[in-house]
Amino acid sequence: MSDRRDFLKRALIGTAGIAAIPVFVSANETEMASTASKINLNSLKYSNVILFQGDSITDAGRNREVKEPNVQNALGGGYAFLAAANLLNTFPAKDLKIYNRGISGNKVYQLAERWQNECLDLKPSVLSILIGVNDYWHKHNGNYDGTVEIYERDFKALLKRTKEALPDTKIVICEPFAVLGCKAVDATWFPEFDLYRVAARKLAGEFNTIFIPYHEIFAKASKIAPPTYWTADGVHPTVAGAQLMATNWMKYVFGR
Amino acid sequence: MSDRRDFLKRALIGTAGIAAIPVFVSANETEMASTASKINLNSLKYSNVILFQGDSITDAGRNREVKEPNVQNALGGGYAFLAAANLLNTFPAKDLKIYNRGISGNKVYQLAERWQNECLDLKPSVLSILIGVNDYWHKHNGNYDGTVEIYERDFKALLKRTKEALPDTKIVICEPFAVLGCKAVDATWFPEFDLYRVAARKLAGEFNTIFIPYHEIFAKASKIAPPTYWTADGVHPTVAGAQLMATNWMKYVFGR
Repeated sequence: MSDRRDFLKRALIGTAGIAAIPVFVSANETEMASTASKINLNSLKYSNVILFQGDSITDAGRNREVKEPNVQNALGGGYAFLAAANLLNTFPAKDLKIYNRGISGNKVYQLAERWQNECLDLKPSVLSILIGVNDYWHKHNGNYDGTVEIYERDFKALLKRTKEALPDTKIVICEPFAVLGCKAVDATWFPEFDLYRVAARKLAGEFNTIFIPYHEIFAKASKIAPPTYWTADGVHPTVAGAQLMATNWMKYVFGR
Repeated sequence: MSDRRDFLKRALIGTAGIAAIPVFVSANETEMASTASKINLNSLKYSNVILFQGDSITDAGRNREVKEPNVQNALGGGYAFLAAANLLNTFPAKDLKIYNRGISGNKVYQLAERWQNECLDLKPSVLSILIGVNDYWHKHNGNYDGTVEIYERDFKALLKRTKEALPDTKIVICEPFAVLGCKAVDATWFPEFDLYRVAARKLAGEFNTIFIPYHEIFAKASKIAPPTYWTADGVHPTVAGAQLMATNWMKYVFGR
């Protein structure tokens, strides 16, 4: 696996034409895709916990003082709330407990710092993680000296720790994404940003988690309506983009 | 029509067994149902406006300072936001402009006071109105001396005014609802509250608008999970209840 990854990284860095990269990456990514199957509804038991973890995209303005599950302002105004609303309405007999613990600005090492309290102690049956755009973005802005190797190492350690503490938890890795043609994301993001999402996809394969290819999902959507219809700045989804994420979350995680 | 309504009202008021009333009303309500067809997606044009109007259930904590369409905090955290997110994701090529102008505590006469600025001036192609629970609730609490006749008269005048100013606007009337078995709604609400929802249904028939039977929708859902799963107090939906409303809004308005 590491040989292929090194090949891929060299190939990416060595590629002259930016526009061609996403297609090239996709072909290779398919090979290393996770084979994890979708979650069968019957495997969810009464009052099982579903936890959304991540950065500002997950946080989406939630009120962090409200600790209870299933409360709108605690779930924020983004994809986690929209997916939660769908889950709670679709599976009422399950009485699910849904939490959002995303925090704006977080990189993977910051998830690790709060993982005991804000993940393991909640004992989720389903754990969804979206992390990585800040690991790249803050480096790109000169405010962070992490690399893709650090991102991958820390994310891998986080997943290993989670698997050890919660062996039965179903994990969902959401691909970090960035949408060209919006104010915060320009051509200088690529191909380096692609390495972060390749790392996330590779870890999904290694840990056999569900993987949601959000980068491709946003790229496809941006052919139907302009990129700014889906994200204001290339990183943070609009209302349409948040629903695009929630709809695909349901599709990739529960097959509906 | 008024004969039947008088009969219905007398019958309701004269009925001894509260539990039997919803079924009795439903049989009569079916006769006076609107025959308006669902909205064909093709009738929506580029950048058409969809407006949600009503009280706190529609408001759902929105930021009233934000006047732009399609913005999460301007859409609030309730069914209007959830329906908007679905609409924006489902019909991206339409570039819809979706507004929420619900205001907590509003009764129908208060909609009328702000109708020019907060409805007619926005020129909605689709106008969804949920109003009536406060018209009854505030009377029930002794804080308002309106009656169901005033509710019906004012709602009728509002619809007439809307039809005159915006003859092509598709109107959706959402049935006011109240869910027994939650802290704010007890048996003393019935049968009087039923008259308000019967009035809303009757007006939908008179003006040939789409009608969403939310009272029945919540009653049915409350057989699958407890009433408090769907509304905290019998009036304000939980996250599950808000999604129940949004899902049915899409079904009754667009048939999907």
